[in-house]
Amino acid sequence: MNKARVETFSDGVFAIAITLLVLTIAQPTNYGDLSRQLWDRLPSLAAYVVSFLVIGIMWLNHHSIFGYFERIDRPLVYLNHLLLLTVVFVPYPTGVLGEALRRGEGTQTAAIFYSVTMAVNAYCWAALWLYASSGRRLLHDGFPEELYTVAIGVAFISAYAVLALHFVFAAYYAVDPISRRATRASTAE
Amino acid sequence: MNKARVETFSDGVFAIAITLLVLTIAQPTNYGDLSRQLWDRLPSLAAYVVSFLVIGIMWLNHHSIFGYFERIDRPLVYLNHLLLLTVVFVPYPTGVLGEALRRGEGTQTAAIFYSVTMAVNAYCWAALWLYASSGRRLLHDGFPEELYTVAIGVAFISAYAVLALHFVFAAYYAVDPISRRATRASTAE
Amino acid sequence: MNKARVETFSDGVFAIAITLLVLTIAQPTNYGDLSRQLWDRLPSLAAYVVSFLVIGIMWLNHHSIFGYFERIDRPLVYLNHLLLLTVVFVPYPTGVLGEALRRGEGTQTAAIFYSVTMAVNAYCWAALWLYASSGRRLLHDGFPEELYTVAIGVAFISAYAVLALHFVFAAYYAVDPISRRATRASTAE
Amino acid sequence: MNKARVETFSDGVFAIAITLLVLTIAQPTNYGDLSRQLWDRLPSLAAYVVSFLVIGIMWLNHHSIFGYFERIDRPLVYLNHLLLLTVVFVPYPTGVLGEALRRGEGTQTAAIFYSVTMAVNAYCWAALWLYASSGRRLLHDGFPEELYTVAIGVAFISAYAVLALHFVFAAYYAVDPISRRATRASTAE
Repeated sequence: MNKARVETFSDGVFAIAITLLVLTIAQPTNYGDLSRQLWDRLPSLAAYVVSFLVIGIMWLNHHSIFGYFERIDRPLVYLNHLLLLTVVFVPYPTGVLGEALRRGEGTQTAAIFYSVTMAVNAYCWAALWLYASSGRRLLHDGFPEELYTVAIGVAFISAYAVLALHFVFAAYYAVDPISRRATRASTAE
Repeated sequence: MNKARVETFSDGVFAIAITLLVLTIAQPTNYGDLSRQLWDRLPSLAAYVVSFLVIGIMWLNHHSIFGYFERIDRPLVYLNHLLLLTVVFVPYPTGVLGEALRRGEGTQTAAIFYSVTMAVNAYCWAALWLYASSGRRLLHDGFPEELYTVAIGVAFISAYAVLALHFVFAAYYAVDPISRRATRASTAE
Repeated sequence: MNKARVETFSDGVFAIAITLLVLTIAQPTNYGDLSRQLWDRLPSLAAYVVSFLVIGIMWLNHHSIFGYFERIDRPLVYLNHLLLLTVVFVPYPTGVLGEALRRGEGTQTAAIFYSVTMAVNAYCWAALWLYASSGRRLLHDGFPEELYTVAIGVAFISAYAVLALHFVFAAYYAVDPISRRATRASTAE
Repeated sequence: MNKARVETFSDGVFAIAITLLVLTIAQPTNYGDLSRQLWDRLPSLAAYVVSFLVIGIMWLNHHSIFGYFERIDRPLVYLNHLLLLTVVFVPYPTGVLGEALRRGEGTQTAAIFYSVTMAVNAYCWAALWLYASSGRRLLHDGFPEELYTVAIGVAFISAYAVLALHFVFAAYYAVDPISRRATRASTAE
């Protein structure tokens, strides 16, 4: 199992998923009133920015996690596939959420859908990490998957709050990345 | 012929094909009834998941097969191109099958179409493998291409059975990968 | 922080963003009058060519800038993410501008939108560069971000002038690339 | 100028352009008559296959040509960008040609458009090659760009003949690749 090739494949998938996000912003339909049409698409732009940062930070954490592995085995590759499956899916709920916000219809459903996707993704990260760290005690603190589950609840209140929350989660992972937590855990031993 | 660059190109093609799958799930049209619209797209999601795993396992096997090659020649690159041609095509029948299942129309045709694509793909794998292993006896057991041909027959019965079957095939290749079979074959000599 | 993997990821994002540009050219709708329909899409083709060259030159400059870094840290990766966020967005205003020019409607708005995108992108470049070069005095001349801001003004006059201007900017960066300016700056010390 | 990074970027662009081809096959619209709808898309499938092989062989030749370069300079990178610009464009005329053939309308225009794209691409290859080989006499025979210009004429007669012709061109380059011609040229000296 060639670790470098798994990383290259994963990098490619992350790079494409993050780039496909731009296709989630609906094309204008009426060019006679273009400035208004573009203005109406601001929620789609916000969803684009949040999902972009979320995937960007995920990529960084993927990078950090794989930096810990000396070698990888088949089960790890399958868990990695599952994780990528949820990453690749992100543009779909992103497009749905942006469009729902623009239309002002179905925003609650779209926000729940977005949050569920992110929660499933968080559990895939946890599975990957647990498998990789079992027997090595790299993980002490536990992953905040509960947070992602909470975000599903928030989706019942406000779709914009969901976007803001996922932005905060991404920022949190940017400031307190997995690698640092792992280091903290090992030094705490 | 630089083996690494062929692998990088193939990895890129696999990564993009697997990511484009997300575009096969049709966007909702009526946001006033979004939860139902998303629910109706479950078959598309199922087709997405199965095709994702199928391509993911293919990528892994591609990886294993190329690990056996010390060097590659032009005919091998052409066979690899043919194989990639069928891999890149996968999102199209995936989209058609998911949409047919959602509409409840043309499911048999869509399932046959999906199965034929997978069968053609399986024969391309066999061609690549046979060319690469000829004179080296790496392959004893024979490839189960018949299975893929059988799947075409199953498509006449149920479209969901076809999805389930291809999921099982992917799982089989995950558990008993080409590399292991090759090792078994060489030790049996 | 593995510099090579950040470069590979960035290369992938640049490569995909530049390739998605082709999707911005609207498909013909009336094949009975195809030659005219294709002719009408010349502005979209022009927007495609300009954006392609702009992203192509950006990629080259990214390449040059990262050539100066011996190692990279997290803040740099985040600035790089922000930069990529604006690069990935380019196909959207490109498509809008090409379509506005084809329809002869909303061209001013579309040109302003395109120019603003490019200006934001220019400021992200400046941020990346300033962070990277702070304390090392690599940058003496200052970046011509004002030029990009000027281009927003030009957008009020003519949408074609905006395309021409961004073509000239790309050509300027091609002839007097960042790397050369940096060298000039250091020898001037 | 890092040759490896230019190759990686080019590989990525080739890989994405070749994969986007699958999006050129129009989705079925009427699932009640799916088998007929799929059958009607055979010309799109044919255009997909031909363009896939054309880009696949181009990638291989790109690979061979860059194998001759010990180092690369900026003008070469710009010529490479121009070449990639025409490669990335290929999915557009491919989609138009497939759709025109399906509708039985505008086939002549679509075939001319496809041939012109390929001819422009061929001239970009020639420019790259001439720049790279000038002063080194790698190129004796001259490139058959005339052939691509002839193909534009053929487009006036039959759109299918154009597809067949470009298939033959790709096959020719597969059998008598640039690398071999270059070797022949140098031994002839």
